Amino acid sequence: MTAALLTPAGGEASAALAGFVVRSRWEEVPDDVRHEARRSLLNMFATAFAGSHDPATGIAVEVLAGLSGPATATVIGRHERFDPLNAAFLNAAAANLHDFDDTHHPTIIHPTAPVAPALFALAEGRRVAGADLLHAFVLGVEVECRIGNAVSPGHYRRGWHITSTCGVFGAAAAVGRLLGLDGRRTLWALGNASAQAGGLVETLGTMSKSIGVGNAARGGLLAALLAERGYSGPERPLEGVRGFLPVTADAPDLAAITGGLGERWELRRNTHKPYPCGVVLNPVIDACLALRENPAMVPDRVAAIRVHGHPLLRERADRPAVATGRLSQVSAQHAVAASLIFGAAGIDEFSDAAVADPRVRGLGARVAVVDDHALPVEAARVVVALEDGTDLVATVPHGRGTPLRPLSDVEIEGKLRRLAAHGCPGLDPSPLIDAVWSLDRSPDAGALMAFARPPAAG
Amino acid sequence: MTAALLTPAGGEASAALAGFVVRSRWEEVPDDVRHEARRSLLNMFATAFAGSHDPATGIAVEVLAGLSGPATATVIGRHERFDPLNAAFLNAAAANLHDFDDTHHPTIIHPTAPVAPALFALAEGRRVAGADLLHAFVLGVEVECRIGNAVSPGHYRRGWHITSTCGVFGAAAAVGRLLGLDGRRTLWALGNASAQAGGLVETLGTMSKSIGVGNAARGGLLAALLAERGYSGPERPLEGVRGFLPVTADAPDLAAITGGLGERWELRRNTHKPYPCGVVLNPVIDACLALRENPAMVPDRVAAIRVHGHPLLRERADRPAVATGRLSQVSAQHAVAASLIFGAAGIDEFSDAAVADPRVRGLGARVAVVDDHALPVEAARVVVALEDGTDLVATVPHGRGTPLRPLSDVEIEGKLRRLAAHGCPGLDPSPLIDAVWSLDRSPDAGALMAFARPPAAG
Repeated sequence: MTAALLTPAGGEASAALAGFVVRSRWEEVPDDVRHEARRSLLNMFATAFAGSHDPATGIAVEVLAGLSGPATATVIGRHERFDPLNAAFLNAAAANLHDFDDTHHPTIIHPTAPVAPALFALAEGRRVAGADLLHAFVLGVEVECRIGNAVSPGHYRRGWHITSTCGVFGAAAAVGRLLGLDGRRTLWALGNASAQAGGLVETLGTMSKSIGVGNAARGGLLAALLAERGYSGPERPLEGVRGFLPVTADAPDLAAITGGLGERWELRRNTHKPYPCGVVLNPVIDACLALRENPAMVPDRVAAIRVHGHPLLRERADRPAVATGRLSQVSAQHAVAASLIFGAAGIDEFSDAAVADPRVRGLGARVAVVDDHALPVEAARVVVALEDGTDLVATVPHGRGTPLRPLSDVEIEGKLRRLAAHGCPGLDPSPLIDAVWSLDRSPDAGALMAFARPPAAG
Repeated sequence: MTAALLTPAGGEASAALAGFVVRSRWEEVPDDVRHEARRSLLNMFATAFAGSHDPATGIAVEVLAGLSGPATATVIGRHERFDPLNAAFLNAAAANLHDFDDTHHPTIIHPTAPVAPALFALAEGRRVAGADLLHAFVLGVEVECRIGNAVSPGHYRRGWHITSTCGVFGAAAAVGRLLGLDGRRTLWALGNASAQAGGLVETLGTMSKSIGVGNAARGGLLAALLAERGYSGPERPLEGVRGFLPVTADAPDLAAITGGLGERWELRRNTHKPYPCGVVLNPVIDACLALRENPAMVPDRVAAIRVHGHPLLRERADRPAVATGRLSQVSAQHAVAASLIFGAAGIDEFSDAAVADPRVRGLGARVAVVDDHALPVEAARVVVALEDGTDLVATVPHGRGTPLRPLSDVEIEGKLRRLAAHGCPGLDPSPLIDAVWSLDRSPDAGALMAFARPPAAG
């Protein structure tokens, strides 16, 4: 096979991706990429536990329970089971619900939520090897994030919820690979996905957002299942004149899709959050938690707080006086006040109750966000001005969970344990953690979903 | 209630639509609009029969059969039943499959396919009065087409399959009304719909297109069912800064949404096709069928054929040598040749077999499309130049099925009878036709779906 065939002209982006997905061999996936895949799965289970009993998940479960087909697939953290399409929907929606799931740095796509739930839903019904599922997952994320790279940054800025819009392609590619589709059918799977790409930034901060993410997983699974039986799509769903790329981006970068396939791996740019809020807030919270160690840091004595950061911090998170836990996830004012007062920044600290706490409201009202063009987006400086004239200052060059300071494996395990305890009390997460770490060696990938269900009621 | 409340500023387009849907009273819907609603339903059943046994429908039925919930809802023209979400998907996809369904002239939206199947799927599970369903249908089409007006023509030109993208809002509004949602929940239904709006023009001519249309019906139904239980969405899903209108259109016309609610009715601009192909081809086929009556019109003696029309005819349908029945639906060359040779222009004349007919290919190769700026889009002139130097000319000022020459009620009934015979042989369509004409008086709207199923196998 010539190099030209492996890296075709950008004009054939859809075929290039389909060909790559079909031809990739597990032996060619580097160890660090495989390891990051397992970390991403652990993080997905963690955040799906966190979202498993949110009211939005509860309503969706209620509505879909009466409409589900054969209950073969697990809803993470819950007793109910659903047909694979509905389970993929529910797990993707729950995993992304708090925006606590992983972040592909260049695009801010949350890569795992749309892809992994579609694969596990399928794997519970058709026996597949763990290595095959992990390989399909790696490829799905690759497809999703490369498409995201090609349309960024204009796509999100325009108002497309990039996790949803690109996620459906990733899920379709991943499931297509796990089904063993040939190149033509993989291309159809991408075409069937293109008919379903949607999701608006306007929905962020509301339950509606989760429909977009859930549909990405469900739609990708459906796209591939239809393609498997011969349901045909367009030849150029991405780069065609009326295809996804030109329709949703100003100047799509086709080379971002076709360049270095099999050499560059997007999972290497995946990150995991220590806190359930917008990534721009990570270094801010790190700084606040450090400041809180200072005995002088007493909320009642604070005159004002200035948060210095990259302009993106202000654009995304300068949001005083938010009314809901959901909106508090993108509020610097809330994040600063809550982490200084509670000394923690977990799900509970970004809840409606935390938002309503008068101490948080009082301190939050004294927080201002200030642009500092010298600071990169992964950095922040927090200055607490006390009434006595003292300034307490903490500068964080790289927030935890940013590319240069990734969460350790132990930290990701800890996150899963904490969120399992939060969302699914009584479940022992150890067997699940072990099963994900050893997924490559499992003959039956779907079996691990049994470890993600709460113990049977007594 | 003041006029200002009835016609709020364009900036509150979402609230205006939700308010209108909630407050509309059946007594205020004019008779001609109600009549057009019944005609549109008849036409929807006609084209759903036509699509009911297409390979695309067959594959989707196969895949979804194993994934469907309780089988309460009819798939038009088939024995299988599905849960309401899947039935809505399948019926919408089938009704639009041949693009033989209705056309809202200003936008080229096919209004009924996304809306009516969602309503009937619900009505088979919850007893609702026929007048209530008809009213909900009128309102759903109103919402869908007004949103379409607001984003046209840039939205479709950019590459959005407008039936799919706007249809999901119409289905959500219609189902919301039938469920009796209040204003806030109707707004949430629109928000939940906004998270699902998608569908690309690039998929036209392939099976993938049907996924977009099917999802519009399914997604709208789901959006309203979720809203009913309190699943919340954004306050301004349409006009918000990252809402549907600014994200998918260059300069959305908000007044097209909010102006004259309850006075102007979009169903009055709905049309029904006599032929299963692009609307621009209607007058062309009329002209060819007229020319064929001329004994001099013998294919072997034709030197060349010139089709004169509005430039849109050339842009949409100057497509020589198509390879599939699907593509032949947007080929002037095929439409001319097939109607001149077969003397008919039905489903069979736009099939793969018709495309492969050497007589059609031979005559089609002699057809050229010529711009005539003096002709409006609903007109065409066909000039057949015979080898002996004679020109046969037919000019059609208004094609059948265009706004000034609508199909009669009898013609729509005839279309339903023909397409039922084609797609569902053995079914007597008379009870269905009667039930649609008298739907306003039915205490149980869903009951008529029994007349849309084939007789039980012996």
